[in-house]
Amino acid sequence: MKSERILAVGSVALDSVETPFGKVKDTLGGSASFFGAAARFFAPVSLVAVVGEDFPKKHLRLLEKCGVDIGGIETARGKTFRWRGFYDYDLNNARTLKTELNVFQSFKPRLSPEHRASRIVFLANIDPDIQRAVLDQVRNPSLVACDTMNYWIEHKKKSLLKLLARVDIFLCNDSEARELSGEYNLIKAARGILARGPRLALIKKGEHGVLCFSQNSLFSVPAYLLEKIFDPTGAGDSFAGGFLGYVSKSPNLSERVVRRAVIYGTVLASYNVESFSLSRLARLTPAEIAGRYKEFQKLTRF
Amino acid sequence: MKSERILAVGSVALDSVETPFGKVKDTLGGSASFFGAAARFFAPVSLVAVVGEDFPKKHLRLLEKCGVDIGGIETARGKTFRWRGFYDYDLNNARTLKTELNVFQSFKPRLSPEHRASRIVFLANIDPDIQRAVLDQVRNPSLVACDTMNYWIEHKKKSLLKLLARVDIFLCNDSEARELSGEYNLIKAARGILARGPRLALIKKGEHGVLCFSQNSLFSVPAYLLEKIFDPTGAGDSFAGGFLGYVSKSPNLSERVVRRAVIYGTVLASYNVESFSLSRLARLTPAEIAGRYKEFQKLTRF
Repeated sequence: MKSERILAVGSVALDSVETPFGKVKDTLGGSASFFGAAARFFAPVSLVAVVGEDFPKKHLRLLEKCGVDIGGIETARGKTFRWRGFYDYDLNNARTLKTELNVFQSFKPRLSPEHRASRIVFLANIDPDIQRAVLDQVRNPSLVACDTMNYWIEHKKKSLLKLLARVDIFLCNDSEARELSGEYNLIKAARGILARGPRLALIKKGEHGVLCFSQNSLFSVPAYLLEKIFDPTGAGDSFAGGFLGYVSKSPNLSERVVRRAVIYGTVLASYNVESFSLSRLARLTPAEIAGRYKEFQKLTRF
Repeated sequence: MKSERILAVGSVALDSVETPFGKVKDTLGGSASFFGAAARFFAPVSLVAVVGEDFPKKHLRLLEKCGVDIGGIETARGKTFRWRGFYDYDLNNARTLKTELNVFQSFKPRLSPEHRASRIVFLANIDPDIQRAVLDQVRNPSLVACDTMNYWIEHKKKSLLKLLARVDIFLCNDSEARELSGEYNLIKAARGILARGPRLALIKKGEHGVLCFSQNSLFSVPAYLLEKIFDPTGAGDSFAGGFLGYVSKSPNLSERVVRRAVIYGTVLASYNVESFSLSRLARLTPAEIAGRYKEFQKLTRF
């Protein structure tokens, strides 16, 4: 199976993170970065994003070294998007201490002719207006997936709902699904989301796994159990990278492909949380991915 | 496979419960009741417990109608054990409003010769001193399982740890595993528990499923997803009933049997939470159990 190139828009950021196990300052982060570093094991990936003049060149080189096409990452006047977060021992919930949108505040993405020809599009978590501006420029997308966060549900719900109608696969976490749908029960929440357009709704529950809903099926998987979770930042984006990367090989969304893709997403996320920033994903190997996929089978088969 | 009789000691209680979906007063509850109503689908069950003079005869008749042997339920002077609890929309956590031990405060179980000959013993959640007093009287047990709760970890840890050394299977929920072991990470918590004696540690995570640990294996399953969870009271005990009931048919604890037993436990618990008290379990059929087991396979296979 030939893999289609995936075009991904989202944030490329400088993260400052503190967990019970350590802290880092201005490290490479952002939804598009984590997605790209995970998806690249399955398909070629092009990122569309903006960074400021202060963005260290070494971070761009790391993404390039991972084989990610950074031709669509623009450098603009001003400072790079920054996120500062904190995790307690309950690593499931990030506490955002500070978000500075900076150059993303005025970002007007302009896609190259090559990027406009992309068939598979991932709209990583960022302002839904920017997600739509990118999607508008893609000529004939065959598969569109989208993630978001509570901030956009609260501040740009209309824009997000317009986008949802044009999306095949929607990903969010459990509290976002509840907030977006107004339903506490996750089966009802997913039904509300699917009614807005997507064929698939993936609800991420952090250390409690993932639920994958379509109109007539439901797939539930636990997370891969780890003895040491170092930093959960980017887990959802690397899940999306593994998931969409695998799906891109056969984008008909058959139940069999979707379920395997969920496991690959789980595997990529589980590696990502083993260290800060992209450092684990950057040195990950296909053999390690295949190994943990098998481990996951042993963990769950009955 | 012939099923061995299971002897279970635990509480038979009058529960007053309020959930977002309704409330009941002085309904049939207690760890032994829920266990028995679930386990009886797989094996004959005898309960050892005490009730007060105020205990309605209809509750005993219901247990008998379920095919549970109530010969070991003693009626003592005084009032029946009572529990009053409250659940918010997050149905995962019960808030105990009141616990009255009443007749259980001075309960000294005395087993009949027939009960003393039991081979499979379940020590449902109750004072570990009472659990040990029952186990002491069983002549030659081949398989012993035990549940507990935070109250006993906090108030009778020594007694509980002594018991743990004599138990094959230990069940508790995630917060209890953390409290008992002093470890936040559940892999480490389970390792701490297994080091105390049990061959299997089952950590129940409510709506997030179950983890099953032995020295050299780990099994993780999500919960059965329900659109309507009515009342979670007794979910853990009916899980134990389904689990130990299935295991009782081939008590060698092979990996294959244990994993299937975890699914049967999950199925029984999922039915139990569909209504107050034992009402769903009382009218459950073997065909419904088999049906949901198959549904669970569909929900999780990849």
